[in-house]
Amino acid sequence: MNDQFVDDLLARMTWQEKLGQLQITYHPDAGRTRDLVSAGMGCIFWQGSAEATNAMQRHAVTHTRLGIPLLVGLDVIHGQRTIFPTPLALAASFQPELAEVVARISGREAASGGVNWTFSPMVDVSRDPRWGRVVEGFGEDVLLNSTFGAAMVRGYQGDDLAAAGAIAACAKHFVGYGHAEGGRDYNTTDMSEYRLRNTYLPPFKAVLEAGAATVMAAFNTIDGVPVHANGRLLTEVLREEWGFEGVVVGDADGVMNLIPHGVAANPSEALLLAFRAGLTVEMGGNLVKDGIHVLTDAELSPTVVDDAVRRVLTLKVALGLFDDPYVDPEREILEATPEHRQIARDVAASSMVLLKNDDALLPLAEPRRILVTGPHANSTDHLGAWVQSFATPSGSIVDELRRRLPETEVMLSLGATFLGGDEPSLAAEAASRASESDLVVVFVGEPSNLSGEAASRSDLRLPGQQEALIHAIADTGVPFIVVIESGRPLALSEWFHRAPAVLQAWHLGTEAPHAIVSALTGRTAPSGKLPVSLPRSSSQVPIFYSHENTGRPATVGGQLEPTKWDPALHGPNNVDDKYSSKYLDLDLGPLLPFGHGLTYTRFEYSEARVSTETLSLDSLRHGATFGLEITVTNVGERAGDEIVQLYVHDLVAHRVQPIRVLRKFSQVHLEAGESRSVSFHLCFEDLAFWSESHLTPGFDVEAGAFDVFIGGSSDAALATRIEVTTAP
Amino acid sequence: MNDQFVDDLLARMTWQEKLGQLQITYHPDAGRTRDLVSAGMGCIFWQGSAEATNAMQRHAVTHTRLGIPLLVGLDVIHGQRTIFPTPLALAASFQPELAEVVARISGREAASGGVNWTFSPMVDVSRDPRWGRVVEGFGEDVLLNSTFGAAMVRGYQGDDLAAAGAIAACAKHFVGYGHAEGGRDYNTTDMSEYRLRNTYLPPFKAVLEAGAATVMAAFNTIDGVPVHANGRLLTEVLREEWGFEGVVVGDADGVMNLIPHGVAANPSEALLLAFRAGLTVEMGGNLVKDGIHVLTDAELSPTVVDDAVRRVLTLKVALGLFDDPYVDPEREILEATPEHRQIARDVAASSMVLLKNDDALLPLAEPRRILVTGPHANSTDHLGAWVQSFATPSGSIVDELRRRLPETEVMLSLGATFLGGDEPSLAAEAASRASESDLVVVFVGEPSNLSGEAASRSDLRLPGQQEALIHAIADTGVPFIVVIESGRPLALSEWFHRAPAVLQAWHLGTEAPHAIVSALTGRTAPSGKLPVSLPRSSSQVPIFYSHENTGRPATVGGQLEPTKWDPALHGPNNVDDKYSSKYLDLDLGPLLPFGHGLTYTRFEYSEARVSTETLSLDSLRHGATFGLEITVTNVGERAGDEIVQLYVHDLVAHRVQPIRVLRKFSQVHLEAGESRSVSFHLCFEDLAFWSESHLTPGFDVEAGAFDVFIGGSSDAALATRIEVTTAP
Repeated sequence: MNDQFVDDLLARMTWQEKLGQLQITYHPDAGRTRDLVSAGMGCIFWQGSAEATNAMQRHAVTHTRLGIPLLVGLDVIHGQRTIFPTPLALAASFQPELAEVVARISGREAASGGVNWTFSPMVDVSRDPRWGRVVEGFGEDVLLNSTFGAAMVRGYQGDDLAAAGAIAACAKHFVGYGHAEGGRDYNTTDMSEYRLRNTYLPPFKAVLEAGAATVMAAFNTIDGVPVHANGRLLTEVLREEWGFEGVVVGDADGVMNLIPHGVAANPSEALLLAFRAGLTVEMGGNLVKDGIHVLTDAELSPTVVDDAVRRVLTLKVALGLFDDPYVDPEREILEATPEHRQIARDVAASSMVLLKNDDALLPLAEPRRILVTGPHANSTDHLGAWVQSFATPSGSIVDELRRRLPETEVMLSLGATFLGGDEPSLAAEAASRASESDLVVVFVGEPSNLSGEAASRSDLRLPGQQEALIHAIADTGVPFIVVIESGRPLALSEWFHRAPAVLQAWHLGTEAPHAIVSALTGRTAPSGKLPVSLPRSSSQVPIFYSHENTGRPATVGGQLEPTKWDPALHGPNNVDDKYSSKYLDLDLGPLLPFGHGLTYTRFEYSEARVSTETLSLDSLRHGATFGLEITVTNVGERAGDEIVQLYVHDLVAHRVQPIRVLRKFSQVHLEAGESRSVSFHLCFEDLAFWSESHLTPGFDVEAGAFDVFIGGSSDAALATRIEVTTAP
Repeated sequence: MNDQFVDDLLARMTWQEKLGQLQITYHPDAGRTRDLVSAGMGCIFWQGSAEATNAMQRHAVTHTRLGIPLLVGLDVIHGQRTIFPTPLALAASFQPELAEVVARISGREAASGGVNWTFSPMVDVSRDPRWGRVVEGFGEDVLLNSTFGAAMVRGYQGDDLAAAGAIAACAKHFVGYGHAEGGRDYNTTDMSEYRLRNTYLPPFKAVLEAGAATVMAAFNTIDGVPVHANGRLLTEVLREEWGFEGVVVGDADGVMNLIPHGVAANPSEALLLAFRAGLTVEMGGNLVKDGIHVLTDAELSPTVVDDAVRRVLTLKVALGLFDDPYVDPEREILEATPEHRQIARDVAASSMVLLKNDDALLPLAEPRRILVTGPHANSTDHLGAWVQSFATPSGSIVDELRRRLPETEVMLSLGATFLGGDEPSLAAEAASRASESDLVVVFVGEPSNLSGEAASRSDLRLPGQQEALIHAIADTGVPFIVVIESGRPLALSEWFHRAPAVLQAWHLGTEAPHAIVSALTGRTAPSGKLPVSLPRSSSQVPIFYSHENTGRPATVGGQLEPTKWDPALHGPNNVDDKYSSKYLDLDLGPLLPFGHGLTYTRFEYSEARVSTETLSLDSLRHGATFGLEITVTNVGERAGDEIVQLYVHDLVAHRVQPIRVLRKFSQVHLEAGESRSVSFHLCFEDLAFWSESHLTPGFDVEAGAFDVFIGGSSDAALATRIEVTTAP
């Protein structure tokens, strides 16, 4: 029925009316937007309020020949009014169900104002933290990006796009944007098909299987072809292989960027390349400009255009816009509600990662006098990247501390500004105040605008003089805690060894101060795990846990200090470890591994139990699974949450495999002393990898042994070895 | 005739005798080597002298059933006895004819001792200076690697491999080894076919066209398959596409490394994978072990083995070994001769790059008192990576200076050690001595063993406290010159602005002190150009001049200092340059670009003249060329050499193109005031790029406009625009 409706409508449309549906543009001026809608533009950005958006819908419905309602897009990334932790922080919860809640509330808040389309989630695997948009995705791991992305889609879209509060999601940026060379935003992306298929495409497959209605093309090239002009990806993979029937929207000016990319000579060529490759909607508004369409049906095939228009109209039908494109201005949500705030606090509590906690310094015993210092202590910049002016702001941490700890004297000393150029006296003054305190909490990190789009950094250390502040506090000998708010994993090595306790708090959003104070005081316990490896230095990147086997794995790290310098790098159990894969001047691996995170109690893992050590490939194909079970015990004094992680390593395959890959994770809550059994099932997909040289090109399992690791981080111990046999 | 000889011999060989020809191994013990030869091993490493090598050949010829002489391999990289500048330094000369001379002499010296096979040249394009082996190749550029590699092959092999002094060359490491992820040696290499074909394969094609008799497989993976097991590369590309008929040797233990790579379960599987993929000779000696062959002819096809043995025997025939495998011990060259030393000096003079020379501080006016300081001032570590114990050593720079400047008082103060942990007094003492001097020369850099194989560094700055030494000297206000000896481009930004003159001297070999003193005093003039971009920081890598167009090129660099911090990065002529490809905390581009290098005079370039602005694609295919001519004038007071460089940019193509590519370069010597015209011809190959989506997959030219830049560095100005038309 809907198909028929769409076909009928399509049959009545002029060429220009069709092209108008295939673009979205942004103009701050409502009058100008109205003119564009009059000229046929089918998609707009949100107009800032329910009323203004209704007005524009009304204009489209009543002042255009066919009265087609509008797609109304907006970058709702981690909240509309209530701002939740950034996606990277969310990923640290290792609880995709939280992401679903976040998306549901964000979608509901946005929908209440007339938004019906968000450009979220971003599921770009990000392994170079120099790239600013690492904050906008779910970190370095394929499974985290897949599960969190799918959860966000479910949250935004629900079961029925036409339902109140549901908005269309957009899987972005298809594909490879996270692999920009040198971490410089918009830079070339280059990778093999093997890597594309095993690492970068799977999260998109997962979110499309979750029903994502739209996909955004990435700015980058793949294989020398910008994705906006890449027919192999937009048509062959997305439509033909995966059967995607939704809308592919370009990124902002992404089609016109084909000109500086040097694959199109002018705007017409750029548009032709993009639509022929499989784009559905151009973001920029270049198809119909000043009321005149740029391309004729002699240039761009009507079949291509009709297919694209059909996709746009089908989405509008699914969203129920032809039934009712309006929202009730009376019910527009204008700021975070108490209920949403409480959820934001809960999510934030699960997103913080306790990196270090020597002598159980955290949670705080209630001290008499504490000093808070560092640029985040008194700032209100906790919302994170990709937040708009209408978001509900957060307060400051120092205010929150004073409110929550009325018995404690909370002193404030700035200590350092974000970007430095400080009076050297700032750190000195903080150190002097520290000496009068029982405890110091140093709030360091990045302001929100140092991550996000077009916010790549070469230097991953704390900016400005913040490291000097930490050293100055450490020099006083007063116990101290470092809280890091950042949009990316930072390089902490130069001071990490001096800090007794370190809490990675990312940017947690509107309720950041409340959540951080709750974690510090022990009202909550941080239970997050790192969704990214923390590098030892800015120039150790890329460093990620699931790198491939090398032919010469290293067992001894490098140390260039002259007293330790040994050109042959002899080490324990090594005749000679020099000729192995490492840097001469860095220890092996990251500073802290993917999956790492402490909490206020400790857990012990039993031996693993396995349902069967052997399965035939054939039975695996037909749905048999390896059952694995492990008992986790809370051996500390407090209740706590653990994220149990299961990693798999395929020992021998015809193509080089990652040293381990996260295949399962599960959150478990345990009272002090409590034990609980956690079980997992490994199926065909969990043991498969993509190769074009499999008998059937694609994902397949190769018979042989697999090591399974289960524990609380990516350095989990070997749990068991299972085997897939060729025998029937 | 030779073919017949080889076939006859092959027909008489047992399975084990065949396998014995397909391995090379190293044992320090001559008795053990003799046993291996008795057991049939056909290739050995050099035995350390003509006599010992002759003895081993005699053993092979007289004590084995068939008397087949031996291939005698050795890593002769940049000299045998006379050590020349490292390959990276050689590339800085931009004079491939010098590389040919270096290879000829190195080959002659090695051949005089019985070596008949070197594992050189390395033509791995290297764009990540963290990788230690950047020193062993010709830098970041395709053309430099191609031309220098080809020149080395001509030098080693001459016209006739059987001639006295000729040895077989080896193009290594096939392919992609320079692209190890994170610059960590032996790490995964991943790239698209597009990049492989346009950047990494062309130098191999060039050196094979120059006749390289052998190729070494690389340790790394390509597309998930280690090259040692990669049939697509070793058989399809190398043999079938390129028609290579020579020997493919594995790298040391490269076949056994397939086990840790996880593509082979045991040694037999590893050997099978490698030989089936197209390997000819295994380096490690695992085919015939303890006199017993490991694989049967049921496992490894006799056709495969016969083909490999035929290649080995054919090379031995070509080398004339069946006629005479011996050398005359009386004529063994045991140390650098005066003639070779003089050539080493000349080459070294052309390899140094004058990075900066404010106020023409260099060449030195003869000062009364100079201080030399820094760890390289009094060291004799100037030979560079990949040099063996029997090389002719160099002296120290301070001794050379004192010898050459008898009228000058040359004071020495260590200032800093290489790796630091220094008494802080070292720099202070140097600074105090500086104040008593007219001039200071600071000799800083890396010891030789900080580059080369298994010598990756994360931190690209001067190691230890050497930067502090430069700052201490700068603080004195005494004029000073910094001379850098290093195996890689270093990150100099933290002190470069303070140094009036900086000379990049790499590791220049046996004659380094003589050559450096000659350059400082103006007896010679440094005329080299950077074969690699100098990064602004260790974490700006990879940074290379020929990166591809992005869709959002940046015009304004980032600056995080708070007084300059502007989140929108507004700049001259920019409404808003934030959304462009860059780092927020670094200026655009490298510190110094590829191709940069000053000398003791200056050059000016005229307008370019072009023979025709337009050619049809058809005529280009049939050999027509664009002629380009430019006049270069020496506008300084001294004679000098300039490297005129021509870069091309393909404006629009169906795949993203590099912003410019070096296509021609030419050295020109000009007296003071002299002008000379330099001409180039651009042909089909110079305008082509590889794409599988060309009408005929492969290298092709697309019609359209090309910008041509001519000048003394990769930031050369636009010279002209030419156009290839489709019209006949």
